[in-house]
Amino acid sequence: MTIGRRIWAIPEGYIPGQSHGPGPEMTSHEACCILNASVKNAHVAITIFFEDRDPVGPYRFEIGPRRTSHLRFNNFDDPEKIPRDTPYSSVIESDVPIVVQHTRLDLRQADNTLLTTIAFPCD
Amino acid sequence: MTIGRRIWAIPEGYIPGQSHGPGPEMTSHEACCILNASVKNAHVAITIFFEDRDPVGPYRFEIGPRRTSHLRFNNFDDPEKIPRDTPYSSVIESDVPIVVQHTRLDLRQADNTLLTTIAFPCD
Amino acid sequence: MTIGRRIWAIPEGYIPGQSHGPGPEMTSHEACCILNASVKNAHVAITIFFEDRDPVGPYRFEIGPRRTSHLRFNNFDDPEKIPRDTPYSSVIESDVPIVVQHTRLDLRQADNTLLTTIAFPCD
Amino acid sequence: MTIGRRIWAIPEGYIPGQSHGPGPEMTSHEACCILNASVKNAHVAITIFFEDRDPVGPYRFEIGPRRTSHLRFNNFDDPEKIPRDTPYSSVIESDVPIVVQHTRLDLRQADNTLLTTIAFPCD
Repeated sequence: MTIGRRIWAIPEGYIPGQSHGPGPEMTSHEACCILNASVKNAHVAITIFFEDRDPVGPYRFEIGPRRTSHLRFNNFDDPEKIPRDTPYSSVIESDVPIVVQHTRLDLRQADNTLLTTIAFPCD
Repeated sequence: MTIGRRIWAIPEGYIPGQSHGPGPEMTSHEACCILNASVKNAHVAITIFFEDRDPVGPYRFEIGPRRTSHLRFNNFDDPEKIPRDTPYSSVIESDVPIVVQHTRLDLRQADNTLLTTIAFPCD
Repeated sequence: MTIGRRIWAIPEGYIPGQSHGPGPEMTSHEACCILNASVKNAHVAITIFFEDRDPVGPYRFEIGPRRTSHLRFNNFDDPEKIPRDTPYSSVIESDVPIVVQHTRLDLRQADNTLLTTIAFPCD
Repeated sequence: MTIGRRIWAIPEGYIPGQSHGPGPEMTSHEACCILNASVKNAHVAITIFFEDRDPVGPYRFEIGPRRTSHLRFNNFDDPEKIPRDTPYSSVIESDVPIVVQHTRLDLRQADNTLLTTIAFPCD
């Protein structure tokens, strides 16, 4: 059983610069949740696209076999941090099939709000 | 007319440990809503994946012909409960075609917030 | 150019029984938004599935060529109203290709919350 | 590597007429986020469909190679502005493959709420 695809895209990306909740749990964040249901390590490379400059990346992650990983874009720092309050998109590539879901927790105002969608499979 | 697929994945999973509303209706919960539009019973097996340990399951459910079932991950308890405040993913398998949608109602703060997406069809 | 499919499914359905905003604009509601980008009338038949009884329908609608229609499940009344605070699923069938998106505005508490997803194309 | 499709649809569209936050960042808005991961300019044409009149458009945009663009429907004004508090749908066409995601930030009440989904790929 092969679960997922090797290339995924998330057009919407935006890390709010402000939060009103106690962190890190309640800090505004944007995440890509990745399921590696295969029996091999997944080597994941994420590229970030901007409106007015060249893409940045790859950001590299390894996800063990039969494991999930909820990666917060907020925490990406190599090769560089992702700027706050700035629109971006992401492309996620893996050497084994994975499934990717996009989630944002927005805490710019007193109460939290959430958005999510399965990312778009490109291959 | 065949409606749906036999294998679905939901990479994002997280059951908030806190609620502020009156329960059980307004308890923070995460659900997978399953439609069995076929004329046969659906035997559903759900496997839960974690970040740092082996998958748990299967959790087994039966959904009658031409019926829907809104399963709350909060209530899963056999083979074990799903821990709160812990990232997970799920894979849903069925012997007849079904359609799966993921929903979370988050009540960690004073007001509720919802997220939803159709799960990812894997077969 | 053919846009869309003829059969769609929405596993998640739930009309909250309460609202706190001024209606009808701010009444809790659940909708399926349908785009008919074709040059023909779309004859749409919606069937509602429940957890513990046989499906109800079809609910019939006609959408003109190159028109959209945002149908509120709250307002369905023929052959019968959809009960509040009750889980359901829906299957949407059309004689011409359409695109379907599911949206809920939930006003059970002081502030509104929204969820949406493209429905699942079945054909 | 080709990422995306050339024709996308978003059945749900609605620009709330009211906001309670400081603008323009916290103005209620509806956006389509477009990723052009290709090495060519994307020439994008968006058509808006209504419930009770003929479609309007195309609204034309150009997105550079390996760039993202978060287009706010609120700001569309050529050939005409999109009316507030009015249901609409949109079809997005491009001469190179793109990926499209739909987002709304709704600020009709004191706290914000978000919705998002990947648009529906039509080709």
